[in-house]
Amino acid sequence: MGEEKVRVLYDFEGVAENGELTIYTDEIITILRKDVGEGWWEGQNDRGEAGYFPSAYVEETAGSGEAVTETPPAADSSYYNGSQDTSANTYTQESASAADQWNDPSSQYQNTAATDPWDQGVANTAYSSSYGQDSWGDTTPAQTGGQEEGWDDDWDDDGASTGSSTATTPTSPTTKTMGSDAGKSGGTMRKSLNRFSMFVKSGGEAFILGTTKSAGSTKNRVVVTEIQEGWSWGPNPAPYKVSVADPTKESKLKGLKSFITYQLTPDNTNQTVSRRYKHFDWLYERLIEKFTTIAVPPLPEKQVTGRYEADFVEGRRQQLQLWVDRMSRHPVVAQSEVFQFFLQSSDKTWKDGKRRAEKDPLVGGAFFHTVEAPQARLPAARIETNMENFNRFQKSMDDSAKNLLAVAAESTKKHMGGFKREYQRVGEAFTKLGTTFDLDKKPSSKPLTNALWKTGAAYFQIGKMFEEQPQHDLNVLMLKVDEYKGILSTFPDILQSMKGTMTKVRECQRMVDEGKMSAEELEEVGARSDVITYTTLAEIQHFHEMRVVDFKAIAQHFLTEQIQFYDKIKTTLEESLKNYDAV
Amino acid sequence: MGEEKVRVLYDFEGVAENGELTIYTDEIITILRKDVGEGWWEGQNDRGEAGYFPSAYVEETAGSGEAVTETPPAADSSYYNGSQDTSANTYTQESASAADQWNDPSSQYQNTAATDPWDQGVANTAYSSSYGQDSWGDTTPAQTGGQEEGWDDDWDDDGASTGSSTATTPTSPTTKTMGSDAGKSGGTMRKSLNRFSMFVKSGGEAFILGTTKSAGSTKNRVVVTEIQEGWSWGPNPAPYKVSVADPTKESKLKGLKSFITYQLTPDNTNQTVSRRYKHFDWLYERLIEKFTTIAVPPLPEKQVTGRYEADFVEGRRQQLQLWVDRMSRHPVVAQSEVFQFFLQSSDKTWKDGKRRAEKDPLVGGAFFHTVEAPQARLPAARIETNMENFNRFQKSMDDSAKNLLAVAAESTKKHMGGFKREYQRVGEAFTKLGTTFDLDKKPSSKPLTNALWKTGAAYFQIGKMFEEQPQHDLNVLMLKVDEYKGILSTFPDILQSMKGTMTKVRECQRMVDEGKMSAEELEEVGARSDVITYTTLAEIQHFHEMRVVDFKAIAQHFLTEQIQFYDKIKTTLEESLKNYDAV
Repeated sequence: MGEEKVRVLYDFEGVAENGELTIYTDEIITILRKDVGEGWWEGQNDRGEAGYFPSAYVEETAGSGEAVTETPPAADSSYYNGSQDTSANTYTQESASAADQWNDPSSQYQNTAATDPWDQGVANTAYSSSYGQDSWGDTTPAQTGGQEEGWDDDWDDDGASTGSSTATTPTSPTTKTMGSDAGKSGGTMRKSLNRFSMFVKSGGEAFILGTTKSAGSTKNRVVVTEIQEGWSWGPNPAPYKVSVADPTKESKLKGLKSFITYQLTPDNTNQTVSRRYKHFDWLYERLIEKFTTIAVPPLPEKQVTGRYEADFVEGRRQQLQLWVDRMSRHPVVAQSEVFQFFLQSSDKTWKDGKRRAEKDPLVGGAFFHTVEAPQARLPAARIETNMENFNRFQKSMDDSAKNLLAVAAESTKKHMGGFKREYQRVGEAFTKLGTTFDLDKKPSSKPLTNALWKTGAAYFQIGKMFEEQPQHDLNVLMLKVDEYKGILSTFPDILQSMKGTMTKVRECQRMVDEGKMSAEELEEVGARSDVITYTTLAEIQHFHEMRVVDFKAIAQHFLTEQIQFYDKIKTTLEESLKNYDAV
Repeated sequence: MGEEKVRVLYDFEGVAENGELTIYTDEIITILRKDVGEGWWEGQNDRGEAGYFPSAYVEETAGSGEAVTETPPAADSSYYNGSQDTSANTYTQESASAADQWNDPSSQYQNTAATDPWDQGVANTAYSSSYGQDSWGDTTPAQTGGQEEGWDDDWDDDGASTGSSTATTPTSPTTKTMGSDAGKSGGTMRKSLNRFSMFVKSGGEAFILGTTKSAGSTKNRVVVTEIQEGWSWGPNPAPYKVSVADPTKESKLKGLKSFITYQLTPDNTNQTVSRRYKHFDWLYERLIEKFTTIAVPPLPEKQVTGRYEADFVEGRRQQLQLWVDRMSRHPVVAQSEVFQFFLQSSDKTWKDGKRRAEKDPLVGGAFFHTVEAPQARLPAARIETNMENFNRFQKSMDDSAKNLLAVAAESTKKHMGGFKREYQRVGEAFTKLGTTFDLDKKPSSKPLTNALWKTGAAYFQIGKMFEEQPQHDLNVLMLKVDEYKGILSTFPDILQSMKGTMTKVRECQRMVDEGKMSAEELEEVGARSDVITYTTLAEIQHFHEMRVVDFKAIAQHFLTEQIQFYDKIKTTLEESLKNYDAV
């Protein structure tokens, strides 16, 4: 077998001191070792740098010694190939120490939090420095409990002091919001990696092996049920909606610090609560910590400069509204204690509730103790086919969504530039002709002159309509497709967790073969791993259901606005045509 | 007074052996002498070449020592300044010899015919060589009469032998037709100059001075009547329309020569006659020879290669239809013997009729003997204001028409290129998303997939509609505005003739002042010059009437097609939207 090369699918910024390799999308990496640890491979880039990177972030290249990506799913092909190769024994021996290295809370994970990969896109330096001062950055509940954390902490909203918010590069309101979103994926991916690490760290593996404590309470049981098309989360018996409205600039410390609050009103309580971006960020951390197999999309990115401009604030409000909608439509998240706390807590109850949420023992692997899944065992081949299919779907949709965003951005630019100019140039040509004809002052000439001027004005107006139209259709489409780009970015890690789960089961199978584990123990391992699988399948099912509903709405809205647009053009031209009746 | 510089408005190809200077649009010419002769100045270009050029083809520049073009009409300003300057006496002395030099039929005019400026744009070499072999090129009736000219002459349609019609550069049908038209003005202008020369040569001046023979016959009297807005040609009592249809490729000499015939059917006779391009060309020569103050637009240009291609032939047919429409809508031309002969002559009567038309004595100056104009004398100041205004109108409309053509050509290109691509790219993005969604084979996913594919197809279709739309609106508009560009190109010479007329009257005025002419003689000169003026004013009136009618129709057609276009887009999108009802 020759040298194996893989192509990078997503950016990953490695932490050098942990031996990680930073890889960039479309880069080709030469594989040095695959038997490194769960989900990690060792490789070398073409600049000769070597290190570890998550295997889910790459795909095999066509020229590779192994099977190419596009071959039909098989035990040894792209998705599941890492765990069944001949070096499995070596891997088993090394896995414990390797896993420790990657997942030691005192080194890699905390380090990651300090460099703040989550918002590295725009606000990296400013945000990470102030984030570093914040003890919330430490997710160990014991440490947090020792401090007085609440509404009045000294942690600035976007991490930059008010004084530093100076020059804003003037960009068009449309391109600004969308343009900055485009650069976000790097940060998002990096964060997602932490979430996967957390799954391992917080006991996903331990849960499968049966070493986590079972949940004492049966409150907040989460149900996965069989439906015609597969498995589904049990529905939310009391669905609700939440409005995110009235972004308000507030300040404290006599104006030294200022921030934006958003007013959230769930329609089941009708009580409005005021939340800052940092509260959303706190909630986000809680959700990804607790729900390792649920697609919790990233929050809208931070922005240091221009963050109080009306356009930016409104754009962020829209994105936060989408995010809250997404979470409140999720049957598990919507019913979760921490989400309800976020939506309902008053200033008075916040501090206690926050501390309680941070101490929630049922996070990560332990969460699965709260899941009521079907008893039926799932055949490994079926799981693999399911995961392989969704893996392919996720990649394809990520491509399609990015393509649609790029096309929509380009089309927006054309509408505001070339299209507008072209129509206005036609308008000017008619106007100019009218002005020529106005040189003939005879009464028989005047009505035509006027009609031509009105045609000129009509095309000028149509040019303006082209300029403004993207606000009504393309930008709305982009906002929502962009949200899906965020949702899609969460799945590689969810699938990676599934892969870890499957690997662990196979490991145990081998241990049974080698007489190191009893058949009864293996049966229990399988049952527990199926709980994780059922939640993953339910989440995939939920994703598809939402996708159909959402993209139906996206397309309907887009087409409806487009129809109105062309109707308006038609009406404008009809009005203009009427003027020739008097000629 | 410093050096005077003028800017060239129209290309003029000078005949070097006659001391003429070739000038190009927008070139700056330094004036050497203005007292050269009627309508001619001497100047030098920035390459140091000096020579004579028609003063109507230039405008004074802002930095010039004389009044700038945009000042209100005054006796000494742009339009009429040549004839009233202090060097008038010098001019008078030189005018006779200068006029002879420019207009000697044996030198300059024939020479011009031989080099064939009419079609120099594309088919220059090939056409002029075969034109040179043709004795029709000699407009002296006596010479023509000595030969057997008829349908069966050896003169090829477009001057190129069939064998030379080889490689055709492939261009889009739309841009080809329009693109080649754009290069036409040079040739047209040159031809027009000949027409002006002919006015002088054929006795415009002689008519004013009363030295032409009066028409014996009162048949074909032409009437100019006073109307509310000024003066007008008497209407055609029996208006008719002519269809130009069924271009047919025919050949003779056993296929060695081939040509296209067009079938003309006037609706008053309902007899179809077959005409070749060369017959149109012959007619055109007759019309400009006879009607020096009527705007006879140039024929569509010749084209050597690709002239039998369907697109070209159909394009030329449309242009010939417009030309025939234009002439048959003109009250004077439509009733003229030569035009009726062209429309009605059978093969049998052609030879005689052709010879008779070429011998028509009532051409050029002598034509005015057939005009019945109002008796009232026209004050010189009023004529000057009228001419000045129309001169300005003509220039402005020429600018506006060229601008409209350029904008329409650019918009056509955008429709066929950028617009189409943009809409199809949007279509592809929807299709691609549908193809991604098709990876999910669950029944609940399929209707959305189908609807997205149909949306993709709809935008692809809209892209195609953008590509095809210019055929329905912009190209029709361009065809007709282009015709007006041709009509407008005839007016500088008509105005130049008017200028010559006015100059001649002033000359006579001075002769009376100097006792060289009697007051009675001057009165007669004035009355005869008014006949020319009345025909010019009637032609200008006719132009304005047609302009209002035509541009009303042009704008209405364009807008109606545009409305249908946007309605079709709207309907296409509505159809697409319906598919989401099933999702």
